Amino acid sequence: MAGKSICFGIIGCAKISRKLARAMSLAPNAILSAIGSRSIDKARRFAVENGLPEAVNVYGSYEEVLDDPTVEAVYLPLPTSMHVRWAVAVAERKKQVLLEKPTALNVADLDRILEACESNGVQFMDGTMWIHHPRTHKMKELLSDPNRFGELRSVHSIVAAGSDAHFLENDIRVKADLDGLGSLGHAGWYCVHLILWANDYMLPKTVTAFQGTIHNKAGVILSCGASMVWEDVKVATFQCAFLINLVMDVSVHVSNGTLHVHDFVIPFEETSAPFRFVTNTGFKELQLGWKPFPSEHVVVTDLPQEVHMVEEFVRLVKSIKDSGSKPDSKWPTISRKTQLVIDAVKVSIDKGCEPINVGS
Amino acid sequence: MAGKSICFGIIGCAKISRKLARAMSLAPNAILSAIGSRSIDKARRFAVENGLPEAVNVYGSYEEVLDDPTVEAVYLPLPTSMHVRWAVAVAERKKQVLLEKPTALNVADLDRILEACESNGVQFMDGTMWIHHPRTHKMKELLSDPNRFGELRSVHSIVAAGSDAHFLENDIRVKADLDGLGSLGHAGWYCVHLILWANDYMLPKTVTAFQGTIHNKAGVILSCGASMVWEDVKVATFQCAFLINLVMDVSVHVSNGTLHVHDFVIPFEETSAPFRFVTNTGFKELQLGWKPFPSEHVVVTDLPQEVHMVEEFVRLVKSIKDSGSKPDSKWPTISRKTQLVIDAVKVSIDKGCEPINVGS
Repeated sequence: MAGKSICFGIIGCAKISRKLARAMSLAPNAILSAIGSRSIDKARRFAVENGLPEAVNVYGSYEEVLDDPTVEAVYLPLPTSMHVRWAVAVAERKKQVLLEKPTALNVADLDRILEACESNGVQFMDGTMWIHHPRTHKMKELLSDPNRFGELRSVHSIVAAGSDAHFLENDIRVKADLDGLGSLGHAGWYCVHLILWANDYMLPKTVTAFQGTIHNKAGVILSCGASMVWEDVKVATFQCAFLINLVMDVSVHVSNGTLHVHDFVIPFEETSAPFRFVTNTGFKELQLGWKPFPSEHVVVTDLPQEVHMVEEFVRLVKSIKDSGSKPDSKWPTISRKTQLVIDAVKVSIDKGCEPINVGS
Repeated sequence: MAGKSICFGIIGCAKISRKLARAMSLAPNAILSAIGSRSIDKARRFAVENGLPEAVNVYGSYEEVLDDPTVEAVYLPLPTSMHVRWAVAVAERKKQVLLEKPTALNVADLDRILEACESNGVQFMDGTMWIHHPRTHKMKELLSDPNRFGELRSVHSIVAAGSDAHFLENDIRVKADLDGLGSLGHAGWYCVHLILWANDYMLPKTVTAFQGTIHNKAGVILSCGASMVWEDVKVATFQCAFLINLVMDVSVHVSNGTLHVHDFVIPFEETSAPFRFVTNTGFKELQLGWKPFPSEHVVVTDLPQEVHMVEEFVRLVKSIKDSGSKPDSKWPTISRKTQLVIDAVKVSIDKGCEPINVGS
């Protein structure tokens, strides 16, 4: 991509900010120009520890990052309960919004953010990385070939992490005032987005939480799951938990075959990502084995998925800046659909696992 | 195993009978001594096509197999609706019962079979093969090591087969008068047994069917699924379908790790069977990848799983015959627990996906 770079500010020195700072240094046409924390010491330490260039402005508040005239786009890795306030503030300063997921505590809050972005003519995108990995595009290409895979029938996903005692006591993702959705927001967001992706972003008709949701003492969801159905024969299930060692599974089952991925959120390795698929398989004579076997495919990538994400965001922002076009609606629409399903799961949990119609 | 062999009769020339006839020829101390079909022509053709020795008696009725004095044990691959009549008839002739799964249309029917076996002092076992595979024992050994895997949290399984139009029109497993449980009985039986196996055969507290069960015009289940919960934090989900290309997946998620198998019912290959597991995995610095990766393990077996099944059955039968001991209760108990959960899923489906307490 040619032309002038887009300058980013980051507000908050969360661990994930380190990954994004690196991604901005690797992405063409992206420059990190400011980092801010509520503590100037923390911001300075972040700059040193991550080897940021001297040109990067370091601030002891989020406001200063937003007011920095060099900053054109802001990445927000803040706790979910702070998203409305800060994402709206960024948009109101006519700066582009790259917001960590889950985007909000509910769709009403997300709508406040999206409205602020729209009325100020700025791009919105959430920070889901796997959707930008070349593997994801390759899998979609295969799944979209009806001669090969046939019709979608079923998707299952489980994402889990954070089973250690320290995480379960201290992490912001288990604090009611910071990230009230807990594992549903953090791990479930990936599952729900994945399920919608496999369904070409068609919303399910109803969502029903599984019995057995686990909350911590503060009422934050540590583990839950749900099934969902569409108007036709399609079904999907997912489970998300903080109580299980790292899992990032997805299985897509179609009339003619199956796709398996065990590292869909963060690939086992940065530069290559595997998936397994099989079509039109059956048994050998007497069912003594399978024919053909599933085969493993590896998608090699020169840049990690978070760099592809930053590149996509920069592409959209440059289109606004360079051509005066309106912000792209694809990513905000996907974020909103994901949030709608997350909301429905939450309502189903709160209503004792009643089936909930998914809103619009 | 030393000593006299056990002589088997088979009633019904289903495809699966060919596999069992071969297993009996491969298993030490098992001999196929009679085959019967309602059509003598079909029985004769079966004998020829499978190269059965001349000594095998060939009959044009099931009764003759049961009355054959050489027959000590009978394998019944009949449609589920015929199980009570024929399994009870076998037991009443003091012959041992190896019964195809699903064992019955409901637990009341299974109890009639189990009572007949018990009162006649004969062994009962259902025809689930995977449970006898050396891989299954190896996986259990690993999962049972709390230092390695920690506590069980979640199990997910999906088994599917039979997505072609011919199967969906003609197979006995989609006929209401023959196999009323459809995919729940045939594919779901494996999932439920697997889930119980992972839970050391502790029954779940409640079972809730997923929305979206698909029946054919005759009311037979083509596709369904359910979630289940235990008294503690454990959950399990499964899906079973006739509308999806061959799938035989299981994932077991524990506090310290994960186990994945993609061919648990029938291994990809007859002589070796893979599984993948990982414990205490996490991310590399900046979450740029996983450390350690899941590793693949292959369990080699000199005999296929159905031979191990026949061997186990023969071992129990010989113990009755040689030592006069009572029939072993392990396998009947497992069959009954599996049937209890299948029953609860069926009731939940029929009651619009209400949570159902699992009986005893």
